[in-house]
Amino acid sequence: MDGARYKERRVVFEEKMNHLQERLHQMGSLVEGAIARSIESLRTQDQAMAQVVVRGDENIDYLQQEIEDKCLELIATQQPMAKDLRRVATLFKITTDLERMADYASNIAEITLRIGDEPLIKPLVDIPRMAVLSQRMVKKALDAYVREDVELAASVGPDDDEVDNLFKQIFRELLTIMMENPRTISQASHLLFVGRWLERMSDHATNIAEEVIFLVTGERQRLNP
Amino acid sequence: MDGARYKERRVVFEEKMNHLQERLHQMGSLVEGAIARSIESLRTQDQAMAQVVVRGDENIDYLQQEIEDKCLELIATQQPMAKDLRRVATLFKITTDLERMADYASNIAEITLRIGDEPLIKPLVDIPRMAVLSQRMVKKALDAYVREDVELAASVGPDDDEVDNLFKQIFRELLTIMMENPRTISQASHLLFVGRWLERMSDHATNIAEEVIFLVTGERQRLNP
Repeated sequence: MDGARYKERRVVFEEKMNHLQERLHQMGSLVEGAIARSIESLRTQDQAMAQVVVRGDENIDYLQQEIEDKCLELIATQQPMAKDLRRVATLFKITTDLERMADYASNIAEITLRIGDEPLIKPLVDIPRMAVLSQRMVKKALDAYVREDVELAASVGPDDDEVDNLFKQIFRELLTIMMENPRTISQASHLLFVGRWLERMSDHATNIAEEVIFLVTGERQRLNP
Repeated sequence: MDGARYKERRVVFEEKMNHLQERLHQMGSLVEGAIARSIESLRTQDQAMAQVVVRGDENIDYLQQEIEDKCLELIATQQPMAKDLRRVATLFKITTDLERMADYASNIAEITLRIGDEPLIKPLVDIPRMAVLSQRMVKKALDAYVREDVELAASVGPDDDEVDNLFKQIFRELLTIMMENPRTISQASHLLFVGRWLERMSDHATNIAEEVIFLVTGERQRLNP
């Protein structure tokens, strides 16, 4: 390929990558919003808000499919090599993680609907903290991807530790509540799952961060072994 | 490209695809084995078997990374188009689902270790049934991928329904046991998670089947809406 054609091709590739990154950013915002709203709906027992999250999940699924199709189209038409190919592949994988996170948010919103207006067995404090951390982790991981910032990506690891510790704490607390009052068992079991899903969300954010590190450095690193 | 070179390229591509499919098959067998052993270790409280599953998870992770790297290499060196590109992309995605299933098997084995030799609160019957179904679903979905058999892929849907129903049943049963005897709460909570993970496994097998249908027909179909 001569110099001018090569240059033109790079411009087209970068334009298409920019477009894909914008869509990824949009998907990330939707997922952050879904996490925030799912937990807010649970905390305030807001059924309407929970419905919004459940219904919104389909849009996130569609967006994921669109991005995925565009990644394949980009690979097919531009035939990127080496690092460029990895950039596309990483973006492709990130959307899978984001989509799973949105699924968990939707699961949480379904718990809000399941609990309905039955009084909460305890005010929710640690669960919203886990959610805030998970949102922060997604945001950091996506920013790290766009800026190829390894340090920022690595900073997701300590957040994941904190989420894991919060989950262990919530697990113990809920077991104690159930043992003291068997009438709480049904709701407490649901809340156990909420905790676990938040923990899984933060694992997905950690996956994204690890992908970013691999993209930039070529080395596989476990952020939270 | 002239005819002879095109033909040579196709041969190389098909050879590499065959190799990738063999590795995928190998990964599938490892995952099926991990599911079977994780549940068997739980049912028979076999700590050594549980250790094997937990330690084996790393090998599955490595295999996934190897397949993924080879997929990217194949795309970069062979620059497949249209359907061929989709075949590689689908294989790439399938390994992500398989890897998640292996993670769940490892989580289950960790529950075996957690429960230790504390007597089981009930003989496990439905949980092993869920596991058998999940294994069958992975097997069918992978066979459907290799043979591009839409009918076989679609047959995973009813299995997923059955798994979902078993999980609901297990959930209700465990809640009842906990309410009747609060001393069972800790172990019952662990078993609740086991049920949920098996349900998630079958969701991943369903994802694989849906990917296969999309690959063959170009249409997105939800097997278990």
